[in-house]
Amino acid sequence: MNDNPKPGKNGFKFPEQSIKTRITDVKPNQLSTRGYNQEDLITNLSFAEMVFLLLRERLPDERESKIFNHILVSFCDHGVTPPSTQSARLIASSGAKINNSVAGGLLSFGKNHAGAIEKAMQLFQDTITSLNLEETDEDEVNKKIARAAIEIVEKYESESKRIPGFGHRYHSKDPRAVRLLDLAILESSIGPHTKLALVIESILSERKGIGLNVDGANAGLLSDLGFDSSLGLGIFMIGRLPGLVAHAYEEMEEEEKFRRFCDLENIVYEGFKNRNMDEK
Amino acid sequence: MNDNPKPGKNGFKFPEQSIKTRITDVKPNQLSTRGYNQEDLITNLSFAEMVFLLLRERLPDERESKIFNHILVSFCDHGVTPPSTQSARLIASSGAKINNSVAGGLLSFGKNHAGAIEKAMQLFQDTITSLNLEETDEDEVNKKIARAAIEIVEKYESESKRIPGFGHRYHSKDPRAVRLLDLAILESSIGPHTKLALVIESILSERKGIGLNVDGANAGLLSDLGFDSSLGLGIFMIGRLPGLVAHAYEEMEEEEKFRRFCDLENIVYEGFKNRNMDEK
Amino acid sequence: MNDNPKPGKNGFKFPEQSIKTRITDVKPNQLSTRGYNQEDLITNLSFAEMVFLLLRERLPDERESKIFNHILVSFCDHGVTPPSTQSARLIASSGAKINNSVAGGLLSFGKNHAGAIEKAMQLFQDTITSLNLEETDEDEVNKKIARAAIEIVEKYESESKRIPGFGHRYHSKDPRAVRLLDLAILESSIGPHTKLALVIESILSERKGIGLNVDGANAGLLSDLGFDSSLGLGIFMIGRLPGLVAHAYEEMEEEEKFRRFCDLENIVYEGFKNRNMDEK
Amino acid sequence: MNDNPKPGKNGFKFPEQSIKTRITDVKPNQLSTRGYNQEDLITNLSFAEMVFLLLRERLPDERESKIFNHILVSFCDHGVTPPSTQSARLIASSGAKINNSVAGGLLSFGKNHAGAIEKAMQLFQDTITSLNLEETDEDEVNKKIARAAIEIVEKYESESKRIPGFGHRYHSKDPRAVRLLDLAILESSIGPHTKLALVIESILSERKGIGLNVDGANAGLLSDLGFDSSLGLGIFMIGRLPGLVAHAYEEMEEEEKFRRFCDLENIVYEGFKNRNMDEK
Repeated sequence: MNDNPKPGKNGFKFPEQSIKTRITDVKPNQLSTRGYNQEDLITNLSFAEMVFLLLRERLPDERESKIFNHILVSFCDHGVTPPSTQSARLIASSGAKINNSVAGGLLSFGKNHAGAIEKAMQLFQDTITSLNLEETDEDEVNKKIARAAIEIVEKYESESKRIPGFGHRYHSKDPRAVRLLDLAILESSIGPHTKLALVIESILSERKGIGLNVDGANAGLLSDLGFDSSLGLGIFMIGRLPGLVAHAYEEMEEEEKFRRFCDLENIVYEGFKNRNMDEK
Repeated sequence: MNDNPKPGKNGFKFPEQSIKTRITDVKPNQLSTRGYNQEDLITNLSFAEMVFLLLRERLPDERESKIFNHILVSFCDHGVTPPSTQSARLIASSGAKINNSVAGGLLSFGKNHAGAIEKAMQLFQDTITSLNLEETDEDEVNKKIARAAIEIVEKYESESKRIPGFGHRYHSKDPRAVRLLDLAILESSIGPHTKLALVIESILSERKGIGLNVDGANAGLLSDLGFDSSLGLGIFMIGRLPGLVAHAYEEMEEEEKFRRFCDLENIVYEGFKNRNMDEK
Repeated sequence: MNDNPKPGKNGFKFPEQSIKTRITDVKPNQLSTRGYNQEDLITNLSFAEMVFLLLRERLPDERESKIFNHILVSFCDHGVTPPSTQSARLIASSGAKINNSVAGGLLSFGKNHAGAIEKAMQLFQDTITSLNLEETDEDEVNKKIARAAIEIVEKYESESKRIPGFGHRYHSKDPRAVRLLDLAILESSIGPHTKLALVIESILSERKGIGLNVDGANAGLLSDLGFDSSLGLGIFMIGRLPGLVAHAYEEMEEEEKFRRFCDLENIVYEGFKNRNMDEK
Repeated sequence: MNDNPKPGKNGFKFPEQSIKTRITDVKPNQLSTRGYNQEDLITNLSFAEMVFLLLRERLPDERESKIFNHILVSFCDHGVTPPSTQSARLIASSGAKINNSVAGGLLSFGKNHAGAIEKAMQLFQDTITSLNLEETDEDEVNKKIARAAIEIVEKYESESKRIPGFGHRYHSKDPRAVRLLDLAILESSIGPHTKLALVIESILSERKGIGLNVDGANAGLLSDLGFDSSLGLGIFMIGRLPGLVAHAYEEMEEEEKFRRFCDLENIVYEGFKNRNMDEK
């Protein structure tokens, strides 16, 4: 940035602007992302590995590549009912182009819908950080994690709050979470955050019959992969976008002129009635 | 749909609504997409293969899987300058959450920015369809394609229009297109649409020194994979979203309070001046 | 724009950019819009007059001001059912902030929902333009308009298409259109476009029992005010935004955690079932 | 809501849904908003009064109507530089339709851009509430307000934070704020919140030479009109949308193919370079 702002028109002077970036370097006939030639990336990386590189700024090793791929696939679609999918379909049925319908779907990733993944990541990460687990003694690690799990369950119970990442409107045992955790065990991808999630699950399962959902399972796994909680929503979106595109496309291919997700027989007017206006 | 609409409140009667879908079936503790159990999809598919399944409604074979993966990686990022990336960064710098910034990026995939991929797919698909290439004689096929290529180049030249999928603001030889086509040759994924694109390129290269860009290369390859042109923009978005997320995240991590992409010294006011109002 | 692009970094050279605008001139402590000091505008204009000035680039006279105000009020709200309102409410119930919910509502102004106003304006404007009505003989004008109206009705009937601006899902006589046209008569704001709309209505009313809706009435009135059809959607949005804000706000104030506009009992899965995957 | 959920398909049972609303009642050929017939509203209300009715659920009196109208006009446009306007123009230049461009503009109303109005309203409202001003003694009221103003200035100074609603990048004396407050004095619309804002301004003006901006002036005036702070952003959007529409339209009318707000000579790549990949 220039210390001596150049004189500007209209009486304004501003320093010269520049945008700094660390993602992709663009030169004539040359493109490199995070330092790697894009041609080599196209040749050698899977799509999931490219996503990993973009967000973690380095290539994943083989183990990381496998589990990160499972995570992205697990996010891809959950049918019509999520708010994001309903919004995308509703907007598509109004005749909007596919990018605008899908954009509307992304706007529905608000606190009540997609907020769980980042909250669960934050909970797991704050907890594990506070435990100072740099022992080599695995017994000691497991004990600390177990104690922390009990504390969390009791804290949330006392506040009548739900622990983010657990339970599901439709599934007592979210099949995606079950399979992700089985794969993580097989692939040696269970780290301290996922352990914590599993211990909390065993307690909740016994007390309330609820288990990890896909957000909770992935919150543990992504935390063990080193992703900051503030990237959770972004990763969820990347995984879910193919489903949104498929749903918007399905809606566009149908004949139905703008779908009404509810109609007047479901609407109850409870406001003022029959007020008189003074003529002006 | 019910033929006898049930009586409704407020004087309205509407038939009962239902939404039909062919994408994901949701049952308690069971999820299947395009007929396959999601647990099996999580275990066995790459993220690119899951995208293929969602959009083409079947699994890709090995050859298709490879080239489709290359295509998605090739779309991932082109630095700060695309309108979608600039929009996403600008909105992020206003303090918006990441899903809203990225949604704004998707809104910028208008005709002038992302329109090329579907136009190129449509051009290639309409042309190849019109050529009736069900001969086994490869020579005859190549001749027809060559003739069609010349016709296209001359038609667009006579109308002073640019052929979608060719040329690039920054690259005389788009490195992504070059590599994609090399890989397609290696992997036996050059079909009639991509052949057509290559022949057009050889003519344009000679006459004007311009070549295929990534949109044009992928338009040929996606057409050869059987994707309808109306899915081109959706596939581009799926590939580009990781880049948009990375850029929005980078903007959020910087301290810059809302970035001005231009400031008053670059704005020239050319409208009315010094008009007088009658007092009311 | 500079004819000799200055040398750039990274091997690129681009001419210096500037943005030209005719809307608002910004100087230190001075703001003027379409040539008028903003302080005078704040003091003297109604909100509707400010909208008129921004879009038509001049102040309205008293007659224009009245009818344009009626038009904006007529657009303000139609309850929960329009797709834009449903989208805004759905997104709001996911926990999104109000600007994002309302933005989602605007995305739903697609061809099937809000397209009617611009199509109706275009139809009326193309027709009136083609009639060359610069006679002073009002009888002749009325005859030409009547003939054109019959042609339009018969053309659309032969193509089994609906004339944009007529009919309504809920109202056989859209009360907003009825009142707008009564006021236009009282205020001498019936011009040739609105005349055309009224004649078409009298024919359709007799043949099919349907009348002008608010889009059709306003399409006539806005055309007579001199607005190009390409501004129809913009004016509709300006009028409808207060309603969208009220609905999003109402949704935010309710306790309902993300509203489902439809739930699983309304969803019928019709796609593939029980497909087997080869293990990879 | 039904206490006995009806049996559902697919193994799910959910109670019957209905949406309650207090905004607009829709019956065949009848529309009423906040209890008033829409025909009467169209006939009698100004657009600003309709906005007031929608958001405050009652009609404004004459004094309220005047000042609320001034407020809406004051928000209408500030040229090209606000992030919302830049986003709308950038998206428009990509070829997007006007509703999508303007929606993108609304997404840019993030914390750093439009957050000020609600923060200022909240600050003023919390302060005035805490002062318990139900005395009839105006002297006592003025003293309490003056003390509170000093406390606020000193609190923010000690925390090195800027008070929302004061100062402006371009204007040492925001002409819109100056005029709004003059009109408020003339129209007897200065209430305790606006008084507080004015006293803070006199202190800041003396100490730092900065004054109220349009957000701060309107925050005081809207608070005195009884609007909750959570409606501040909605009101700002309603006022600003006409400007966004005008800017998007101007961009659409120009020939410029997607505008670059910055180009490669302004971008500095600072990330990794020349990394080698192991071939896979």
